[in-house]
Amino acid sequence: MSAFSALDHLHMASALRLAERGAYTTRPNPMVGCVIAHGEQVVGQGWHQRAGGPHAEVFALREAGEQARGATAYVTLEPCAHFGRTPPCALALIEAGVSRVVAALRDPFPQVDGGGFDLLRAAGIEVHEGLMAMQARELNRGFLSRVERGRPWLRVKLAASLDGRTAMADGSSKWITGPAAREDVQHWRARAGAILTGADTVLADDPMLTVRLPGVDVLPPLRVVLDARLRSLECARVRQGGAPTLYLHDPAITAPDAADAQFASVPSVGGRLDLGAVLALLAAQGVNEVHTEAGATLAGALMSGGWIDELLLYQAPILLGEQGLPLFSGLGIEAMDQQRRLGIIDKRQVGDDLRLLLRP
Amino acid sequence: MSAFSALDHLHMASALRLAERGAYTTRPNPMVGCVIAHGEQVVGQGWHQRAGGPHAEVFALREAGEQARGATAYVTLEPCAHFGRTPPCALALIEAGVSRVVAALRDPFPQVDGGGFDLLRAAGIEVHEGLMAMQARELNRGFLSRVERGRPWLRVKLAASLDGRTAMADGSSKWITGPAAREDVQHWRARAGAILTGADTVLADDPMLTVRLPGVDVLPPLRVVLDARLRSLECARVRQGGAPTLYLHDPAITAPDAADAQFASVPSVGGRLDLGAVLALLAAQGVNEVHTEAGATLAGALMSGGWIDELLLYQAPILLGEQGLPLFSGLGIEAMDQQRRLGIIDKRQVGDDLRLLLRP
Repeated sequence: MSAFSALDHLHMASALRLAERGAYTTRPNPMVGCVIAHGEQVVGQGWHQRAGGPHAEVFALREAGEQARGATAYVTLEPCAHFGRTPPCALALIEAGVSRVVAALRDPFPQVDGGGFDLLRAAGIEVHEGLMAMQARELNRGFLSRVERGRPWLRVKLAASLDGRTAMADGSSKWITGPAAREDVQHWRARAGAILTGADTVLADDPMLTVRLPGVDVLPPLRVVLDARLRSLECARVRQGGAPTLYLHDPAITAPDAADAQFASVPSVGGRLDLGAVLALLAAQGVNEVHTEAGATLAGALMSGGWIDELLLYQAPILLGEQGLPLFSGLGIEAMDQQRRLGIIDKRQVGDDLRLLLRP
Repeated sequence: MSAFSALDHLHMASALRLAERGAYTTRPNPMVGCVIAHGEQVVGQGWHQRAGGPHAEVFALREAGEQARGATAYVTLEPCAHFGRTPPCALALIEAGVSRVVAALRDPFPQVDGGGFDLLRAAGIEVHEGLMAMQARELNRGFLSRVERGRPWLRVKLAASLDGRTAMADGSSKWITGPAAREDVQHWRARAGAILTGADTVLADDPMLTVRLPGVDVLPPLRVVLDARLRSLECARVRQGGAPTLYLHDPAITAPDAADAQFASVPSVGGRLDLGAVLALLAAQGVNEVHTEAGATLAGALMSGGWIDELLLYQAPILLGEQGLPLFSGLGIEAMDQQRRLGIIDKRQVGDDLRLLLRP
C-alpha cells in the first residue's frame, strides 16, 4: 500500500472524469482516462474514445510531448502490455520518459493483468496502484463484470407509480413519467452494450429501443429481444432506427432469413430461455452492460434468478390503483421474512419524478 | 403591501421557529411565536405553549420588560383582541409601548379576524401584515383548515415497499420500515389532534396508537376508531396507554358503557360512515390535524372522497411481491387519464428508508 497525496487524488479524479467521456463510444473496451502532470501542472490529458482508436495514454502523451519526461502519469486502468489493435501503452510511457505511474486499477483482462505494471517497473518506473480504485471499478462495472464474471452487468429500468404499478391492467402505460425522466433514460441506454427486452413488451408497445440523443456521439447499442418462439416478428420498429437487433430464440424454432436482424438460439428451461445462457452469449459478443426495459414477467424472472445488478426505478408521483400491473411477477414471496432488500445507491428528482438507483 | 427588510425577515423566521416549539402542546390553539426587537437587538422572545396558558406575546413582553417601549414586535399570527382564557394580547402590546407590529398572518378565528390589528392601529401603532405568510400558513395548516374549512387538515401515513405493497396477503407487515422511520412517525403523530384508524386495522394489528417520545412534552392525541358496527371492541390496546379514545359508529348501533372510551354516532352512507361527517365532528371537537394510520380500504375511501390533504409515504427499499396488499383500494382508476397526480412537497432518507410528503 502506498500513501497517495491530495494532488494524486486530484489528478486521478480528473482522469476518471476524462475516462467517462468515452461512456457511449468505447465499447467493448473499458473507459480509460489519463492525466500527465508535474506536480500541480498538467501537461497532457487524454481518454479512450473508441475501440480500435488510440488509448488514453497515447492522447495524453501526444499532448505532453517532451514535457512527459520526468512526469507522473495518472491512469484509471493499468496500461496495456500487449500488441492489440494498437501498440502497448506501457512501452509508450517508457519511451516518453515518465518517471512515475499511478493507476487506479489493475486490468483483469487476461492479456494484461499485471503485465503492464511489470513492464513499467522493469524499466525503472515507480508504479503505484489502487488510487480511487472503488470509483474506477464503479466506472467500468460493465467491463469488469464481463471479464471477471463472464457476464455483463445487468440493469433493469422500470417506471412506476407511487403505488407500484407500471401500467394499467390493459397494458397501457403512456406516459407514467414525464419528459425529463424519459430523456434521462436515453443516457442509460447510451452507455449499455445491449438493450434487452422481451417478446411481450415488443408485442404490447412495438418499441424502437434506440438511443435518441441528438448531437451526441453514441455507438448504437445492440437491441436484444428474448423471444423463444419468435412471436414478435410482426413488430418491425425494434429492427428500425439504425441499430442492430438480435433475436434470441429456442433451438427448436427455425429463424427466418432477415436482412434487418440477427438470430441466435439459446437453450430453454421449462419453456423459457435460460437467462444465464443469454447473458453468457452477450458477454461473448463483448457486451459489458445490459440495459433492460421489459415487463413484469421478464423483470421478475431476472430478479428471481439473481441476475439483476442494479434497478433503475423512476417513480412518478401518481397513483394508478390496485388493478395496475406490478413491477415484478413471480417473485414467490409469501412471508415478510422472504422480502427482497435492496440498497439505495442514488436518489434524485428528475423533472416531476423521482429516480432511484438500487442494488440487491 | 409593505416592503419588509432583511432584518424583518430574520426576526420573523425566528418567531416561526419559536412558534413551532408548541407543535405538540398548543392544541386546539394555533402555534404562535413572538420576537421583540430594536433593530438587530432582540429584547424578548416567546411562544404559545399550551391552551389556557399565556400567549406568545405575553412571554416575549415579560422578557423585554421596559425595553419593549419603542420596539418592533414580530408575531406569526395577529395578536388576539378578545378576552378569552387570557386578556387580549393587542392590549398588552399597546400597554408595553411597542411602536410597530409585524404579523405574518391575519387570524381567521371569528373573534379576532382583523380586530387585533384594528386595536393596535387605533392606539397609533404601525402595523404590517403578510411577512412570510406562506410559511406561517404552512405551520398552522391544521388550525387554519379547521377555522377556514370547518374540517381538520388530514394526513394519511403509509409505509410501503418499492413495489407498492403495505403488507403481505395475510396482512402481516412487521416491519416494512426500519427503526428510524418508525420513530419519525412518532413526531407526526405528536403534532396531530387526532390519530385516525379503522376497525380492520384495529382487528388486524391491535395497535396502541399513542405517541412514544420519551422525555418530550406531548398532549396525547385523541385516538379515533371508525367502527360502524363496533366490531373491534375486543381489541383493548387502542384504549390503553393514557390517551383518550373515541369510537365513531353507526347510529343504529348502541354504544356500550365504557370507562376507557367515548362513543359517538355518525351518519353512514351505503354501510360506511360518512367521512365528511366524521371530519366535521372532529373539527367541532377542536381537532386541527388528523393523522391517519389505516389500511387500503379506509385510505382508499379518504383518497376517493378527496379528503386527503397530505400523504406521508415511507418507502422501504424492499420488494414484497405482487401478492402483497395495495396502498389504496377502490380508487376506480381504469385508464391512464384517470391517474391521480400528487406533488412532492418533501423527500428525504430516514434511516434506510425514503420518506415522501405529497399533496394532491
